[in-house]
Amino acid sequence: MDIEVLEGVFDANEKIAAENREIFAKHKVFAVNLMASPGAGKTSLIEGTITGLGGRLRIGVIEGDIASSVDSQRLKVHGIQVVQINTGGACHLDANMIRQALEHLDLSTLDLLIIENVGNLVCPAEFKLGEGLRAMILSVAEGHDKPLKYPLMFSDSQVLIVNKTDLLGLSDFDMEDLRATVKRMNPGITIFELSCRTGEGLESWTNWLYDQATA
Amino acid sequence: MDIEVLEGVFDANEKIAAENREIFAKHKVFAVNLMASPGAGKTSLIEGTITGLGGRLRIGVIEGDIASSVDSQRLKVHGIQVVQINTGGACHLDANMIRQALEHLDLSTLDLLIIENVGNLVCPAEFKLGEGLRAMILSVAEGHDKPLKYPLMFSDSQVLIVNKTDLLGLSDFDMEDLRATVKRMNPGITIFELSCRTGEGLESWTNWLYDQATA
Repeated sequence: MDIEVLEGVFDANEKIAAENREIFAKHKVFAVNLMASPGAGKTSLIEGTITGLGGRLRIGVIEGDIASSVDSQRLKVHGIQVVQINTGGACHLDANMIRQALEHLDLSTLDLLIIENVGNLVCPAEFKLGEGLRAMILSVAEGHDKPLKYPLMFSDSQVLIVNKTDLLGLSDFDMEDLRATVKRMNPGITIFELSCRTGEGLESWTNWLYDQATA
Repeated sequence: MDIEVLEGVFDANEKIAAENREIFAKHKVFAVNLMASPGAGKTSLIEGTITGLGGRLRIGVIEGDIASSVDSQRLKVHGIQVVQINTGGACHLDANMIRQALEHLDLSTLDLLIIENVGNLVCPAEFKLGEGLRAMILSVAEGHDKPLKYPLMFSDSQVLIVNKTDLLGLSDFDMEDLRATVKRMNPGITIFELSCRTGEGLESWTNWLYDQATA
């Protein structure tokens, strides 16, 4: 008899993430794991993405928060499928939480599923969810020195969205320094600069995301 | 024979935190655990506090980061004792890390020890360090809706510093809403509004901190 020994919590998570990936593939749903610090603009980017895609893709959202349904209420006005996960203290989403949330979504009617992770630049990077794209946001207000302090998130994401570029003139944020540091850590990463507040730069991101989701 | 069973990692941490508290008391050092999201302004507030106290207290700093010594290098120019902890991936400081850092500080020459925690609005709230004051920063750029999403940090801190008030006119941050929400969750909390960038409001904070540290 073979006994399968799971090497702790990470392996168990990877196993469920792989199953989630199969579920997404079967339903031709492109899943995005959206990670960032608190207040970097995750929900605002989702709103901008829904507007920017203008119905070209059928979008669903899984909202991850420790508590509250503030964000899912913001998104429901857009008339899309939204499922709220409250982690009840846990600092990240894991693959099993996503599995449970999927039971409340009709994947056959979706092209794109955006998963808004808990606001945290550390722990979410360690837990794969089965996503097709690992995306992170850094807000200009957070400063350009963050990659060195939170290396896993920056080196493991496939796309970095630098949000709140409308604040660039009001801070000492050095975009060239940021780009150089991130590219050194993660040469393959794609970087967008935009402002969810003014809308500047959003079109490049949504067009790129559309291409990724339909490739 | 009595066998002491520690109820997991939290109890073990509480035990060492209590010992740290005794060490601080013995040396008459007032320890502040400073917590916030990445980029909320922890290091800037420490710099402003050093300047604002103007030598009235002898200050030491423990810098917590996952990686890098960016912040401790910023602080060393102020001619104070600084110890850097690199957690190597861990998303928070714990009491045992502080214990080890204390071996590199001369507590007999300090009045105030500021411990800058890892940038994270979730996990640091769960680990006591032995501090005399639990302080948190929220940046205006993060938005006023954060208390509902990160309840433990807001309900367990003794002081909330709202930083980057120079950005108030550029965002839809609602200070009255924030104050009402936080006071409902944590009636005893003291709230300061300031801008480390312009210096506005810093004096009230440093004077209050001086009173706390010398009480």
